[in-house]
Amino acid sequence: MEFVDVIMQRESVRNYDPMRPVDKDVLERILEAGRIAPSAANFQPWHFYLVSTYNMLEKIRRCYDRPWMHDAPHILIVAGNRKEAWRRPDGYNSLETDLTIAMTHMVLAATNEGVATCWIAHFDYQRLREALELKSYEEVFAITPLGYPRKEYVKKGQKNRKALSEVAIYL
Amino acid sequence: MEFVDVIMQRESVRNYDPMRPVDKDVLERILEAGRIAPSAANFQPWHFYLVSTYNMLEKIRRCYDRPWMHDAPHILIVAGNRKEAWRRPDGYNSLETDLTIAMTHMVLAATNEGVATCWIAHFDYQRLREALELKSYEEVFAITPLGYPRKEYVKKGQKNRKALSEVAIYL
Repeated sequence: MEFVDVIMQRESVRNYDPMRPVDKDVLERILEAGRIAPSAANFQPWHFYLVSTYNMLEKIRRCYDRPWMHDAPHILIVAGNRKEAWRRPDGYNSLETDLTIAMTHMVLAATNEGVATCWIAHFDYQRLREALELKSYEEVFAITPLGYPRKEYVKKGQKNRKALSEVAIYL
Repeated sequence: MEFVDVIMQRESVRNYDPMRPVDKDVLERILEAGRIAPSAANFQPWHFYLVSTYNMLEKIRRCYDRPWMHDAPHILIVAGNRKEAWRRPDGYNSLETDLTIAMTHMVLAATNEGVATCWIAHFDYQRLREALELKSYEEVFAITPLGYPRKEYVKKGQKNRKALSEVAIYL
């Protein structure tokens, strides 16, 4: 798909058909888009958890308990290691930025494949940490379901955003 | 350009032709890709500074003093307001994630337009804050030059990344 169509068509989908898992090769192309994402100093301080088994899906869904989350056949979680991320001399650590770039690549790659996503930051972090058995230095900033909407679902197809004149400053 | 070609062709370019500014309509399409980016709760807590004038370019270059930065005809800065970003009940603030999604959209949109970029997090943050006269609650996580490489420049055209088997975990 053309890049501009991908960013225009990406939207948060809260409707998944539980009977339509995503093919393995499609999932791999989505993960591949995250794999090649840039990160500070190319440290790639990340792991991509692709959850597809019944027991693990149930655990992760409890971290964000919405009815439509129970229908999604896959959940993607980008986790990272703060110790492996780049640090600036003033103390800034690039982990959140690195993981967000990778997740953005994968969300757009999913859109490119016709696979629906929904960026979720509003999860129960403690439960998620326990479900994934994360170490103290491992962090997660976003998860997303992956799947196809039910047949009757119609995407909104429009973006409600501030005008460019409100957002852009020319200096 | 096809989405997959965009993410494959994006790479950090440290070579800019000072005599080739980017056309206004191309710059606007790049900014537009940031404008439509998703953000937590759709709060869009961002401003995109597009720096193209001699005096401001000189100020910003001093925040990351590399010879090739002095050649770039434009510098793009994504700044955000921590007070306007979404907050999770446990205290997490989405600002860095929101700004990174917008910057990722714009870096990929630039690639799609044949415009070179280089993600920079290693800037002198205090100098940058002063140059932009940022308020205490305003933050920046990344800046990038925008421009065209000199004629003789050849992109690397390859990605040095961990294997997918090292990065992906199937649960």
